[in-house]
Amino acid sequence: MEVKDMVFMNKGDGENSYVQSAGLTDKLAAVAQPMVYKVVESVLKEKFCSSPGEVLFNVADLGCSSGPNTFTVMSTVLESVAKNCGGSECQMSEIQFYLNDLVGNDFNTLFKGLSVIQEKYKDVPRFAMGAPGSFYDRLFPRNSMHLVHSSYGIHWLSKAPKITCERGLPLNKGSIHISETSPLKVRKAYLSQFQEDFLLFLKCRSPEMVPNGRILFTINGRKSGDPIGKESLYHFELLSRAISYMVSKGLIDKDKLDSFNAPTFTPSQEEVEDLVEKEGSFTVEFIDTIKVEVGEAWASAESRAKNVRAFSEPWISHQFGEEIMDKLYEKVTQIVVEDYKLGKQTTMVVNIVAVLKKKDI
Amino acid sequence: MEVKDMVFMNKGDGENSYVQSAGLTDKLAAVAQPMVYKVVESVLKEKFCSSPGEVLFNVADLGCSSGPNTFTVMSTVLESVAKNCGGSECQMSEIQFYLNDLVGNDFNTLFKGLSVIQEKYKDVPRFAMGAPGSFYDRLFPRNSMHLVHSSYGIHWLSKAPKITCERGLPLNKGSIHISETSPLKVRKAYLSQFQEDFLLFLKCRSPEMVPNGRILFTINGRKSGDPIGKESLYHFELLSRAISYMVSKGLIDKDKLDSFNAPTFTPSQEEVEDLVEKEGSFTVEFIDTIKVEVGEAWASAESRAKNVRAFSEPWISHQFGEEIMDKLYEKVTQIVVEDYKLGKQTTMVVNIVAVLKKKDI
Repeated sequence: MEVKDMVFMNKGDGENSYVQSAGLTDKLAAVAQPMVYKVVESVLKEKFCSSPGEVLFNVADLGCSSGPNTFTVMSTVLESVAKNCGGSECQMSEIQFYLNDLVGNDFNTLFKGLSVIQEKYKDVPRFAMGAPGSFYDRLFPRNSMHLVHSSYGIHWLSKAPKITCERGLPLNKGSIHISETSPLKVRKAYLSQFQEDFLLFLKCRSPEMVPNGRILFTINGRKSGDPIGKESLYHFELLSRAISYMVSKGLIDKDKLDSFNAPTFTPSQEEVEDLVEKEGSFTVEFIDTIKVEVGEAWASAESRAKNVRAFSEPWISHQFGEEIMDKLYEKVTQIVVEDYKLGKQTTMVVNIVAVLKKKDI
Repeated sequence: MEVKDMVFMNKGDGENSYVQSAGLTDKLAAVAQPMVYKVVESVLKEKFCSSPGEVLFNVADLGCSSGPNTFTVMSTVLESVAKNCGGSECQMSEIQFYLNDLVGNDFNTLFKGLSVIQEKYKDVPRFAMGAPGSFYDRLFPRNSMHLVHSSYGIHWLSKAPKITCERGLPLNKGSIHISETSPLKVRKAYLSQFQEDFLLFLKCRSPEMVPNGRILFTINGRKSGDPIGKESLYHFELLSRAISYMVSKGLIDKDKLDSFNAPTFTPSQEEVEDLVEKEGSFTVEFIDTIKVEVGEAWASAESRAKNVRAFSEPWISHQFGEEIMDKLYEKVTQIVVEDYKLGKQTTMVVNIVAVLKKKDI
């Protein structure tokens, strides 16, 4: 089974689901909304108020999950259109949203949630489609997208780096990601996989975008040049500790922990900029590294543990087995509670927000 | 709750699901495949081999359910394109499929099934989107669709006709559809609802189609002018008898049966032609009434009863309660077994197949 079969958020709307725990990403996504608003404004001015031929505004949200953040993005786009597209010189008359995520995503829940937006903006001619598939592959026809948005998607890798020594033995023992004790080879393997994937992402989007179309994305990033440290890796350290505990109790096979590496990477702004330049189809119109105070969603140890479960359970359970998930996440909660008592709570998240503009060539 | 919340096929891929029992519709849909092939040929010749601007072929399947018939249609389209689009004069280079059904449809299962097609035709640039919503509403942007296909969708009404006397009491007692004993008012109410819905369907599609774009649909129809008789109504009579039995055992409230009317209608060819002419945006390029021998899927009473369950359970359970479904369909099976013993099996289905061409005005 590949990463595309397991990296998606928890399904449905039950207690451990993504829909319920989206408060965190909701908070984080809110930071990007003014950007969405402004980028829509730019695209409208450049494409629709000057080219008499264009009447359909195509917007995609990549890695949309099952809601509600994608609905926030849709609302922002629709509000910006309503504000900026009143004039008679603007030809734009219809908006089409393409909501993308992996095939394993819960599209049924997504489509049910859509009805709120459809009802609220029923006077605007807007259409919403589900676009199942990996954004490391082509998703849309050539020359069709005016705006591609992605919130907390592109830091997920297409596959976990395989990190073994010459004899094929795992090099990143006792940890599911880069940690303070990881050998240099582990860090290099992660960076290399991110570089390969991010270039592929740009290469797939390039033919899909109209000239001067925009990609706006937010990902977890890091301030420091060296890819370790609490700022980006606390949740993985947490999971590694809980899994190690399960190994010590004989509930998880040690080899399963030693051979597993979580398929995600938090790059620095510079690493992203270098890759955009290397690929060559886009210019960086805006990029910034922003620290966000998460606040309420991580205020209590319990809500934080719940949040960690929602984002990690699908791929953690795929590797370690569904039957032990409740026990594992009990341990996670326990560790977070202890860390919080010791004053170890980090409530800051580092984000990279970027707007890429498709070159008009 | 409205019809759009309950008329869809049974979810998942379990024993009573649509995916498993689709053998019947599969057989019926096979009749329409040569038509699909030919219509694609026509559209390609008219739109893509003559207009140098057109490069993207947009195809929609309305009421696609969760598979596998929609995959058969996709395959036919792709095969026809491969055969008819090899020449250098053809500009068509990419195909986009929009798979539509109601929001309550099981899109998760649909998208999982899609991977077979995606794999088989991976060398053809093709994209597949889910388009949730009612086809009695706008679904797609203006002037975008080259071909709209619908197999066994448009005989579903947007709502059940409310058939009551002046004092508000139900007029169609003991039956869930038009039956041999139904008063004339029942037949009129059904026809009237179909007329309203079919006109709305055409009105919604009209702006979405490119000039000379085609709608190809297959629906259950009838040969006779009068809308009663075994040819189209056996399954409803069957369900009515089973529900009446449950009423007699005190398991279903009599009022629930008397007030319920199934939201579907089987028109005659003439009724369809009249409505196309009345709406005015399309010409009838082809229409025929075809009897299909169902064969294997209805050969045994058990497989037939299973088939009835797959198509009726979502809306039957919505009205009468999920908890009695197993008992109800046991009774259905028992009645079919008895009917078959009496030699009453009808294995013919009457279909109307039509191709409508969008006027170029």
